[in-house]
Amino acid sequence: MPPARLRASMRFEVHATDPAGRARAGRLVLPHGETETPIFMPVGTRATVKALTPGEVEALDYRLILANTFHLALRPGDDVIGDLGGLHRFMAWPHAILTDSGGFQIFSLAELRHITDHGVTFRSPLDGAAIELTPERSVAIQQNLGADIIMAFDECAPGQCSERDAEVAVIRTTRWLRRCLDAKTRADQALFGIVQGNVFPALRERSAKEVVACDCPGYAIGGLSVGETKAQMWQALDVSTAHLPAGKPRYLMGVGTPADLVRGIDLGVDMFDCVLPTRNARNGQVFTSTGVVRIRHAAHTRDSAPLDPACSCETCRHHSRAYLRHLHMSDEILGHRLLTLHNLAFLRQFVRDARAAIVDGRWPAWRDQRLAQWETQVDTTAATP
Amino acid sequence: MPPARLRASMRFEVHATDPAGRARAGRLVLPHGETETPIFMPVGTRATVKALTPGEVEALDYRLILANTFHLALRPGDDVIGDLGGLHRFMAWPHAILTDSGGFQIFSLAELRHITDHGVTFRSPLDGAAIELTPERSVAIQQNLGADIIMAFDECAPGQCSERDAEVAVIRTTRWLRRCLDAKTRADQALFGIVQGNVFPALRERSAKEVVACDCPGYAIGGLSVGETKAQMWQALDVSTAHLPAGKPRYLMGVGTPADLVRGIDLGVDMFDCVLPTRNARNGQVFTSTGVVRIRHAAHTRDSAPLDPACSCETCRHHSRAYLRHLHMSDEILGHRLLTLHNLAFLRQFVRDARAAIVDGRWPAWRDQRLAQWETQVDTTAATP
Repeated sequence: MPPARLRASMRFEVHATDPAGRARAGRLVLPHGETETPIFMPVGTRATVKALTPGEVEALDYRLILANTFHLALRPGDDVIGDLGGLHRFMAWPHAILTDSGGFQIFSLAELRHITDHGVTFRSPLDGAAIELTPERSVAIQQNLGADIIMAFDECAPGQCSERDAEVAVIRTTRWLRRCLDAKTRADQALFGIVQGNVFPALRERSAKEVVACDCPGYAIGGLSVGETKAQMWQALDVSTAHLPAGKPRYLMGVGTPADLVRGIDLGVDMFDCVLPTRNARNGQVFTSTGVVRIRHAAHTRDSAPLDPACSCETCRHHSRAYLRHLHMSDEILGHRLLTLHNLAFLRQFVRDARAAIVDGRWPAWRDQRLAQWETQVDTTAATP
Repeated sequence: MPPARLRASMRFEVHATDPAGRARAGRLVLPHGETETPIFMPVGTRATVKALTPGEVEALDYRLILANTFHLALRPGDDVIGDLGGLHRFMAWPHAILTDSGGFQIFSLAELRHITDHGVTFRSPLDGAAIELTPERSVAIQQNLGADIIMAFDECAPGQCSERDAEVAVIRTTRWLRRCLDAKTRADQALFGIVQGNVFPALRERSAKEVVACDCPGYAIGGLSVGETKAQMWQALDVSTAHLPAGKPRYLMGVGTPADLVRGIDLGVDMFDCVLPTRNARNGQVFTSTGVVRIRHAAHTRDSAPLDPACSCETCRHHSRAYLRHLHMSDEILGHRLLTLHNLAFLRQFVRDARAAIVDGRWPAWRDQRLAQWETQVDTTAATP
């Protein structure tokens, strides 16, 4: 039986909502602590937010991070992490964690996958071994890992698939969610269902209704940002969140440019994750209060100014653009560290400002100002290395 | 004219000497602060001690680090660093720095080098451009960088060269030292001469006497750990330090296993540098109080113990061998960080203990104990990636 504090069920509170729309400010209380919403979750793929220590992520005021079931099940193995007391202890992160189901990585990374109603078979990218992932196995792995929030095992149909294929994925996603709920035995983990349906509004509505019927403690919107147009993406998100209950948290998976966060929050999303801010940092692209800075640019060679004079992160307090450019051009680990630190500091402040705007009743103006600044700035394709 | 604190000349104090030998404990006072001796200097090749922030190096209680003239002159360029206020400000390291002359890298890394009495011509490894380095140019670069201690431009003859070739290098090294001293214009930098002579005792003695005749504020022993046997190395060091004045600091270049530090200190060396502890860390090999640990070893897969229970560094306080192994196997930046942090913490404590043994009159016993532990442990060839 887990200790008392781990038995506390998840609680979600909405503190303020934009009167003219769906944007809301809230708080998510989890067994390993709480976090304000809306919130961006840094991605700790392999039990590490790349380049940072847990202490640094904590000092950046993050209290909820994501880790990837697919990667951790392959290495070091969820059994290893379970034997060592679970993921929190393994990675020395005392705050809340969300694990995905492994589904998205199978559909985006794995070779030779074979999908049936039972589950998915694929080859390990590490050693080529055949691996089967099912709803039951995904839940078992996530129970070994022990995150505060775990995700249902869903089918993520390709971005350009037919409506028929998308429908098959919706049907399977609902069936698999029921199997996940049946398989779940730990009381201290909140299992979120996932809305699928690609870019088809009728399927999104159907999926949302079917998933909500399962009465999960929270809901995710999956299958977006996978190749559709921005217009299609926002329409699909709009339909999805319209059919999700107001009292439960909503999580838009894999989305994370500043402009996308604003659009998502505006459509009622509470939680986001994306590798973009950390991956872009390692590629030398950072967010600043005046827009995107590409540190590789020769203009920074002798620039003694900080990345962002409006930022108070360690990178901006101590280091010049000239030094950061030199580290990046030399492929030095410290360069990856300092740019990652800054991007996560920037996004933390960005959602903190968004929340304050909602609470203060200034959301529409804040939203419009940020969209005007950011919708022309960041090419999300830059996230692909 | 530099500010007053930068005009302070270097001062070296010997606080205690082993009555039976040459090991000594002292203090080196430099324009950017002071450090105890004997001391190991972490290598910050490209203006960064790989994987660590300046704040972390400082927190490890290091107050003197090394940076490489060769690498910094190529990128970002010593003119860039000079324009930005010098290396201390560029890399945000407020404490003391030593720069090498660039000579060793030319002889070990550069292609198509051509050596004359005037200097050395070689091709840039970055873009193939022809570059000439002379004593005057090396000093000019090092003056742009602005380190507290700068090194004479010497000829480092190959490890297996003939006595005649070694003699030519000794003659040239002395001549070049005089040209370095003539070229030097900044009063706030201490220029160390370098003793060459390979494994030939007569040449070592001659080189030491010639260099000492130039009356430098400190002396380095170069051309060791370049392929000769350990016995040859210690004999050459013995002859070299025997002819160096007791009142000035002695620096053994490029040497840094625990056993080598003990031998060097025993022969009267005060300062050491080596990439081994930082490079080995990135390769998963760490020093602990019970010997070398190779974190890749499968035995650590489920080991919840710290790297070294006797160590109080951040890595050992917060992280298990199992997690460190996972990070290393996954080639995660955090793994390189945490292992580097530990190795530098270990070596800092190692030389602190050595100093205490000298001060307390326990040096022979401490030396013998550590040699028994370490001389069979570390294969220095493991430093080569």
